[in-house]
Amino acid sequence: MNPFVMLNPFFKPEGVAVVGASRNPHKLGYGAVRNLKEYRYQGGIFPVNKSASEILYLPCFESVAEVPDPVDLAIIIVPASIVSTIMKQCGERGIKHAIVISGGFSETGEEGRELEEELVRVAEEWEINFIGPNCIGTIDTHTPVNTTFVTGMPESGEIGFCSQSGAMVASVIDWARGAGVGFSRIVSLGNQVDVNETQMIRALHEDNQTQVITAYIEGVSNGKNFMEVAQKAARDKPVVALKGGRGESGARAVASHTGALAGSAEAYGAAFERSGVLQAETMEEMFDWARALAWQPLPKGKKVAVLTNAGGPAILAVDALENAGLELAELTAETKKYLESRLPKAASVSNPVDVLAGSGPGTYAVALDALLTDETVDSVVVIQAPQDWFLPASLAEVVGEVAGSHQKPVIASIMGKASVEEALKILHKRKIPNVAFPERVASVLAAMVKRKEWLDIPQQTPDRFTNFNEQNVERSTSEKDWKSLLQEYGIAFPPEQLAETEEEAVKATESIGYPVVLKLESESISHKTEVDGVKLDIRNKEDVLRAWNEIKESAELTDVDMEGVQVQKMLTGGQEVIMGLRRDPQFGPMVLFGTGGIDVELLQDVESAVAPLNRLQAENLIDATRAGTKLKGWRNQPPADRETVIKYLMRLSQLGDDVPNIDELEMNPLYVLPEGQGAYAVDVRGTVVEDEKATV
Amino acid sequence: MNPFVMLNPFFKPEGVAVVGASRNPHKLGYGAVRNLKEYRYQGGIFPVNKSASEILYLPCFESVAEVPDPVDLAIIIVPASIVSTIMKQCGERGIKHAIVISGGFSETGEEGRELEEELVRVAEEWEINFIGPNCIGTIDTHTPVNTTFVTGMPESGEIGFCSQSGAMVASVIDWARGAGVGFSRIVSLGNQVDVNETQMIRALHEDNQTQVITAYIEGVSNGKNFMEVAQKAARDKPVVALKGGRGESGARAVASHTGALAGSAEAYGAAFERSGVLQAETMEEMFDWARALAWQPLPKGKKVAVLTNAGGPAILAVDALENAGLELAELTAETKKYLESRLPKAASVSNPVDVLAGSGPGTYAVALDALLTDETVDSVVVIQAPQDWFLPASLAEVVGEVAGSHQKPVIASIMGKASVEEALKILHKRKIPNVAFPERVASVLAAMVKRKEWLDIPQQTPDRFTNFNEQNVERSTSEKDWKSLLQEYGIAFPPEQLAETEEEAVKATESIGYPVVLKLESESISHKTEVDGVKLDIRNKEDVLRAWNEIKESAELTDVDMEGVQVQKMLTGGQEVIMGLRRDPQFGPMVLFGTGGIDVELLQDVESAVAPLNRLQAENLIDATRAGTKLKGWRNQPPADRETVIKYLMRLSQLGDDVPNIDELEMNPLYVLPEGQGAYAVDVRGTVVEDEKATV
Repeated sequence: MNPFVMLNPFFKPEGVAVVGASRNPHKLGYGAVRNLKEYRYQGGIFPVNKSASEILYLPCFESVAEVPDPVDLAIIIVPASIVSTIMKQCGERGIKHAIVISGGFSETGEEGRELEEELVRVAEEWEINFIGPNCIGTIDTHTPVNTTFVTGMPESGEIGFCSQSGAMVASVIDWARGAGVGFSRIVSLGNQVDVNETQMIRALHEDNQTQVITAYIEGVSNGKNFMEVAQKAARDKPVVALKGGRGESGARAVASHTGALAGSAEAYGAAFERSGVLQAETMEEMFDWARALAWQPLPKGKKVAVLTNAGGPAILAVDALENAGLELAELTAETKKYLESRLPKAASVSNPVDVLAGSGPGTYAVALDALLTDETVDSVVVIQAPQDWFLPASLAEVVGEVAGSHQKPVIASIMGKASVEEALKILHKRKIPNVAFPERVASVLAAMVKRKEWLDIPQQTPDRFTNFNEQNVERSTSEKDWKSLLQEYGIAFPPEQLAETEEEAVKATESIGYPVVLKLESESISHKTEVDGVKLDIRNKEDVLRAWNEIKESAELTDVDMEGVQVQKMLTGGQEVIMGLRRDPQFGPMVLFGTGGIDVELLQDVESAVAPLNRLQAENLIDATRAGTKLKGWRNQPPADRETVIKYLMRLSQLGDDVPNIDELEMNPLYVLPEGQGAYAVDVRGTVVEDEKATV
Repeated sequence: MNPFVMLNPFFKPEGVAVVGASRNPHKLGYGAVRNLKEYRYQGGIFPVNKSASEILYLPCFESVAEVPDPVDLAIIIVPASIVSTIMKQCGERGIKHAIVISGGFSETGEEGRELEEELVRVAEEWEINFIGPNCIGTIDTHTPVNTTFVTGMPESGEIGFCSQSGAMVASVIDWARGAGVGFSRIVSLGNQVDVNETQMIRALHEDNQTQVITAYIEGVSNGKNFMEVAQKAARDKPVVALKGGRGESGARAVASHTGALAGSAEAYGAAFERSGVLQAETMEEMFDWARALAWQPLPKGKKVAVLTNAGGPAILAVDALENAGLELAELTAETKKYLESRLPKAASVSNPVDVLAGSGPGTYAVALDALLTDETVDSVVVIQAPQDWFLPASLAEVVGEVAGSHQKPVIASIMGKASVEEALKILHKRKIPNVAFPERVASVLAAMVKRKEWLDIPQQTPDRFTNFNEQNVERSTSEKDWKSLLQEYGIAFPPEQLAETEEEAVKATESIGYPVVLKLESESISHKTEVDGVKLDIRNKEDVLRAWNEIKESAELTDVDMEGVQVQKMLTGGQEVIMGLRRDPQFGPMVLFGTGGIDVELLQDVESAVAPLNRLQAENLIDATRAGTKLKGWRNQPPADRETVIKYLMRLSQLGDDVPNIDELEMNPLYVLPEGQGAYAVDVRGTVVEDEKATV
């Protein structure tokens, strides 16, 4: 199935039937015909309406059957109860693509759900691909075609936008018209029972007019497919997503809105990260980024130069840049000397470069050119505070021209509102993104740097660890099983022995050697510390006996079956981390890593990544945590065995793929000894998905 | 000195002399005369210019001396070199207030600095208060008067704005004109060698037309004064600050911009927190907040209801609200039942309440009224995604009217741009703040809640701890001194003995009782763990001897003088926190609290507050940290002795005030035992300000 061919008629139809077209300007069936006509669709527009002879001077047809060739797309705007009938008629007429605007389906309850199921059945029978139901339609500004009923048509541009919310599409159309932002394609997916967000991202990827893909996503249809398609797209063009339903209340609202499974915000974050999808926090941010990514080259690195005619706004920009992880370029002595020779005496020639209020577009041109030439500079921010003595539009022209002759990104912040409208139009024409407030440059440049860094990650799949006996990898449910499973993947545990009596405990301790740890052995408990089931640093026989008794008492008190204690070698001089797997319902196994110990929830230093991990991905995961910083050697502590941690993370991520019935698996603490001395899983617990078979 | 009288002529002058007035429309001296005249200043406008007879039909005067009565304000726009001469002429003419627009002073280097000093000298001699030099001037929209040369005059409104950056003022004027935001007073402070930001905040506080004070601040002139004035103002009206130079690079840029001492961002944050000043992150945020604070009542609490005609935008708002610490109100059964009876069948009557795309202003009115009546709701967000079938302006009217008959804040997000201009004007008139993107409501409501919470903190000064012998509180420079100083304030230390030899160490250990800690005693070192100078959990004689030798070796290796070891009782079963003092050059002693131990920098869980602390302030400081969460009892750990921590924080904050020569003082770890068992400072170190005398 070639997805390009499949979805093409939604954006470049040869003829469009509007079923449910209306002469009443207050009806959606009028708006759709009006938009096709008014926004200059060049193919045939065929209103279908039994009782009218013409709508907007276009002749009407009594039924879909009568619509002439060529026609390959139907817009359906009829009551929910007859949509399936119309869909069948489309099938009979040979129309293979439909946009179902009508609402009244699964979003309204059980009755609607049944109508939706019938609709899907008919569409499958007639092999019709459809968008919706309960959607707004599609726009392609280059064809041009506008199948929506929403007033207004954005300018032509490079940004493609797909959305699971129709309201978002309507808002974006209205906002884009006001802000003069151009789009290539816009599509509202509605209940997406057939065409979904992943297919649409593929269609935007394959569209030559689309330079940046943006998406409002409440949930994805299939996590693995989404990641594959998004990652492929992101290799070629930037993909920016705004995820709705990130918090708990938001996720609940999503569930009642489109019924989409919002999934955990962390999992979506990790999936976006893996796929190179840039996740925006707000709509404004999404389109700030989209314009910059569409119009400007990516920066080589994090070093930013700020060029300004005023101190205050530059300081706010610098604060925001620094806060977003970017750095101010240290200009070369040559650049500074050159600027000194060209700028007013009181100007600042160190970054931020302040040409002062008395300098105009000519001075800006000279300074911008020097900064873009300086090898220490990866990108330039140009700020202009309002002044009375030159046309802001002339600065816009200058910035556009000078930036165009270099290969580095330039972001403008021509401040103000009343006096700068013409300047903004010119910047738009010159493809220089502008932000009204200088602080907003930071998020834009940070997104560009992030994309650059993602593109630089080699995409090789990780080396498989094959040093294990596949026979031994089986369904695991108890700690003992987890341990042997992990050992199969070469993850080490400290020496230990099970002792079922006091005497055995003393004996075991003496064979292992002091100091030891005593741990409650029980099938019925996972968080051992909550029943006082772990005794650390036991150094002599009396302490062994006391520990045994305390564990026993605590087990009795909390009604826990005690099968004995594990006597374990106590490790010292290392660092406690947590490492684990967690299966996300959408994206499959995720690998976790962070600061371990009993305060793991309190410290909130755990990051996750989608399995499997190659070496660089494992390193990135480690480095994203404070635990990772500490592994490299913190204060007087020697560097820990980071190599072993990397190895373990890669193997554990493979295990997540190999044994799909693991729901959660956690080593906490994993005790990391100094460099070269390995790492040991001290405590491991896990759960399996009960209703799924082990498939190894 | 009555500051109202002092600064009044800058905003309500009886007559204004413009020295350096010009007939050339490209000169600032023309702009100032034009603005006075064009923006309808009703007092006398007296251009001073030797060679012109009139400017803009206003007769000119050859010198300040000739200007007729009444005149109480001079705007000076002449070359820097003659500003002092003009200032003297003003003094001779009896003018006591001046705005020095001219640049070329300390901001340009040494020569300028000398001119500035001369200017200050003359002004003092003639008792003239002046704003600037190197500023833009003042605006009072109610007088009205506009002493600036910048094109444009904002509408009248409730927001007062003062700024250390003239560019910011120019940007705000231009932006306000475009966005239709109204201001009461605007002032650019320039180099503020006389009138400063604190005096101006007081002037805005005392101005009846100003309902909200906003300020762009790079540094304050005097931290203590600022806090006192800001706090007094914030009791009566909201104060919102945007601090420039928060990051390292930003602070450097501030230093080279206005020469202001940016100080540490943390200290400013703590000072704002203490004074009830709301700190905005961006310009946009500052004015979003200002409008809401000026126009709407404060919410009683954190419970928000969201009313929308579309799911997607509401979900984004909910995500942002939750992320900002707000909560969705659980509506009462009564409200839900009522909404059910009034809204379309498929509508959502749970929060967020979705009236669906087919509902118009009438339905909004009914639902908004119900939500504002519901006792579980503290504030309401009204979202409208663009639609084609009713006038957005009618919704604006409805929201304005319904909100006006309740005492709870309402924030609107009428989305889009092209179609909503009229609606925005009506919202403005009705004093309903609107944000273009629904996510922005979150920061607005969070700021309002924060103000409410601050107003609820009782402002009593803390009880003084008086149980110490003042004779014993003296200049402290070594750990031993710190210890006795802290003990004077009732802070406990674990039992310990100094041992100068191996034998003494063994003896001390036996008298204190195992387990013990051995700590290197040395004058020449502070971070003991970095020389392996601390040995924990020593349980027998051999270990004492081994520890002694290891400490000795390490001291020799790192070239540290070893005077012996402190043998200290080892505490177990408690929580390690850090508690300390740090003197900020602007705001004086700050109290620190957070997670302690050797990873304190890594964990980044330390918060600070301005001393002295009353009980509630101490509790707020504790609760702002993860360490504070843990003190309350985390997982199986018993609640720690939080009461003692509160007590210590209050006493330590008093110590900071009592002994002003302390630069830094840190107890890390302070070991907090379970409830009722106290807390012990295990390690303490500090430094004093060398060039200041102890003043106890």
